Amino acid sequence: MIQTDILIIGAGPTGLFTVFEAGLLKLKCHLIDALPQPGGQCSEIYPKKPIYDIPGFPEVLAGDLVTNLMKQIEAFEPGFTLGERAETIEKQKDDSFIVTTNKGTKHQAKVVAIAGGLGSFEPRKPQLENILDFEDKGVEYIIRDPEIYRNKKVAIAGGGDSALDWSIFLADIAQEVTLIHRRNEFRGALDSVEKVEELKKLGKINLVTPAEVTALKGSTKLENITIKQNNEEFDLELDHFIPLFGLSPKLGPIANWGLEIEKNAIKVDNTLDYQTNIPGIYAIGDVNTYPGKLKLILCGFHEATLMCQSAYKRIFPDKKYVMKYTTVSGVDGFDGSRKEAEKAVVKSIN
Amino acid sequence: MIQTDILIIGAGPTGLFTVFEAGLLKLKCHLIDALPQPGGQCSEIYPKKPIYDIPGFPEVLAGDLVTNLMKQIEAFEPGFTLGERAETIEKQKDDSFIVTTNKGTKHQAKVVAIAGGLGSFEPRKPQLENILDFEDKGVEYIIRDPEIYRNKKVAIAGGGDSALDWSIFLADIAQEVTLIHRRNEFRGALDSVEKVEELKKLGKINLVTPAEVTALKGSTKLENITIKQNNEEFDLELDHFIPLFGLSPKLGPIANWGLEIEKNAIKVDNTLDYQTNIPGIYAIGDVNTYPGKLKLILCGFHEATLMCQSAYKRIFPDKKYVMKYTTVSGVDGFDGSRKEAEKAVVKSIN
Repeated sequence: MIQTDILIIGAGPTGLFTVFEAGLLKLKCHLIDALPQPGGQCSEIYPKKPIYDIPGFPEVLAGDLVTNLMKQIEAFEPGFTLGERAETIEKQKDDSFIVTTNKGTKHQAKVVAIAGGLGSFEPRKPQLENILDFEDKGVEYIIRDPEIYRNKKVAIAGGGDSALDWSIFLADIAQEVTLIHRRNEFRGALDSVEKVEELKKLGKINLVTPAEVTALKGSTKLENITIKQNNEEFDLELDHFIPLFGLSPKLGPIANWGLEIEKNAIKVDNTLDYQTNIPGIYAIGDVNTYPGKLKLILCGFHEATLMCQSAYKRIFPDKKYVMKYTTVSGVDGFDGSRKEAEKAVVKSIN
Repeated sequence: MIQTDILIIGAGPTGLFTVFEAGLLKLKCHLIDALPQPGGQCSEIYPKKPIYDIPGFPEVLAGDLVTNLMKQIEAFEPGFTLGERAETIEKQKDDSFIVTTNKGTKHQAKVVAIAGGLGSFEPRKPQLENILDFEDKGVEYIIRDPEIYRNKKVAIAGGGDSALDWSIFLADIAQEVTLIHRRNEFRGALDSVEKVEELKKLGKINLVTPAEVTALKGSTKLENITIKQNNEEFDLELDHFIPLFGLSPKLGPIANWGLEIEKNAIKVDNTLDYQTNIPGIYAIGDVNTYPGKLKLILCGFHEATLMCQSAYKRIFPDKKYVMKYTTVSGVDGFDGSRKEAEKAVVKSIN
C-alpha cells in the first residue's frame, strides 16, 4: 500500500504544481495518472504547441512547461503511479481514503486532490468486434515501452503525429513496420511526413494507404489482421497492432465516487478551498466547476495553492501554521537540500 | 484626459498580467504607479532576488519576471502613468470613474482595477523639520531622471543597494557626489561596496561615515546641509540631497475611496470576480483580502483573470462573450499582429 499525505489524481500541470505548494508545507504527495508520463494533455496531446497565457512566459511549449514543473517539484520527491487509472475510493475509519487503480495498486492518504483535467484520456479505439479480446495480447493503444517491439512485426494505424513519429522510431527497432492510414494524406509535422516517405523508399516502413483494418485474428494472442485497401482485402501476419487514433477525455470512474457533478465537472467550494461535497476530497484545475470558473492552467495553480492550505489543516488539525514566502526564505526540499537567495553582503569601507 | 477600458492602479506583476487577460478580450488598459518604472516591489525592492514559487519557473529573478511580463503584454499596448500616485476617484453619471493623480493627471474608465500590492511605496523620509519645504526644490527621495544631476553637487544618504548603486552611477555624471551613512558598514552587494571604495580612492565619491544629516538650509531652494560626524557638525554646499532610506508600503489615498477595508487590505467578493463593495471597482493581488487569501503573485494572476471576465460584462453588457483559449487560437495584439502556433502540415505520401 502506497501511503502519502496528499494523493493527487492527475499529473497534469495543476497536479504537478500541487506537489510544490504541498512541499512548502512539508506535505508529501503521490500522483496517479492513466497516461504513461506526467504532464497530462501538455505532454500527450500538444507537447510542441506554444502556450501564450502562462503568466511570465510570453511563449512556452507545453512540453517545456511540464519539464519546468517537474524540475520545480523535484526537491519534494513526489511518487508516481503512471499508466494506471484511479478506479475506486473507500473512506476508512480514521478518515483517510484508499484509492485503488484499474491494475489493483492501492494508495492511502488523508487528502485526495482530483486534478484530473478533462478526465482520463481514453484512447479512441477502432470499431473492431473482437478488439477487447486482444488488448495486451497484441493490441496496444499507447506505446509505453518501445523495447517490447524489438525484432517484432508491428502494424500502426493512424494519420497523425503519433502514428508518424512511432513508425519512424520503431523502423529502427522492429523487424517489420507497417503504417496503415485511411487516407493518402497525413496530418503531422512536415519533417515527420518526409521522414516516413524516406523510410518507405528505403523499405523500412511498409506504407498501406488508403486502407483500414477490418478484422483481427488469433487464438490466444493476435496473429493476423485483415487490411482493406481499394475494396480488396488481404491478411498481414504480425505480433502487434497499435491503433493510434488519439485520446478522448472522459471523467471516467471518478464520476461514481459520490461527488456532486455538474456538466461533466466536479462542483467545489470556491469561496474557500476548492473542496468537494466530500470533506477531504478536493478538485482543482479543469476538472472542477464553480461560478465564474475558467478552464485555464493559471487558475489551476491558484486553486492548488489554496487547497494545500486547507489540506494542511486537515492533516495536522492541531498544528498552527504560518505560510512561508519563498521570496524571503527560499525552498527546502524533502531531501534536506535548500535553495535560497544569496544573502546581501555587509562590508565596511574605510 | 486619458481614456481607457480598464484603469489599473499599480503596475506590479498582477497589474501587468491584467493587461494580457484584458487584451485577449480586446479591452485596453492604462496603468498608474507611484514608482517611476513598472514591476512594483519586484523592480524596486528585489529585482535581483530569485523567486521560487512562480509556477513553471524553478527559479526566476524578480526583475526578469517583470521583463517577461512586459514582453507578454507588449502586443496589447498598455498606457502608463508612472511616478504619480492615484489620489482621488469620482464616479460619473455614465457609471465611469475619473481617477486623478497627485500631479493632476486625469484618467477615465468604466472599470478600475486596484492592483496596488502592499500599497503605494512611500519613501522613508529622514526626520528633518523643514524637509517638506525642500521637496522637489533640491530634495528627492527617488531618482527618476539621473540627467538632472549632471554637473551638480549631490549628496546621497543611505547604506543599502540604492544608495551605493546611485552613488556609483552619479559619480560619472555629477560634479560632486557625497555619500553619507550613519554606520561604516554598508548592506549591499559586495561588488557595489568594492566599487564605491574604489571611487572613493579615486576621489570621485566623497564618503562621510559614520555621519548623519541634521539640518537643511536654503532660501527658495536647498543650498546647504549640515552633517554631523563624530559629534562635530559641518556644512556642505550642494544642489541636491537624496535620502535613499527605502520605501515603506502604505495603502495611501485609496484608503479614502469608500472601499471596505480590513487589516489594511480591500475586501472583495472572492466567490465570483474580486469586485469591491463599489461596483466597477475591483481589487486584485496583495491589496485585497477574502477568506483564505494568500498574498502570492500566482494568486494575483488568477484574480486578474477572473476579474477581466467580469469587467468585460460591465463594459459590454449586451455582448455575448466566448472565452478564448490561446493554446488553440493564439494571441491577437491591438496592433493587429498575431502570434500563433504553426499549423500542422497536411501532406500526401505517394
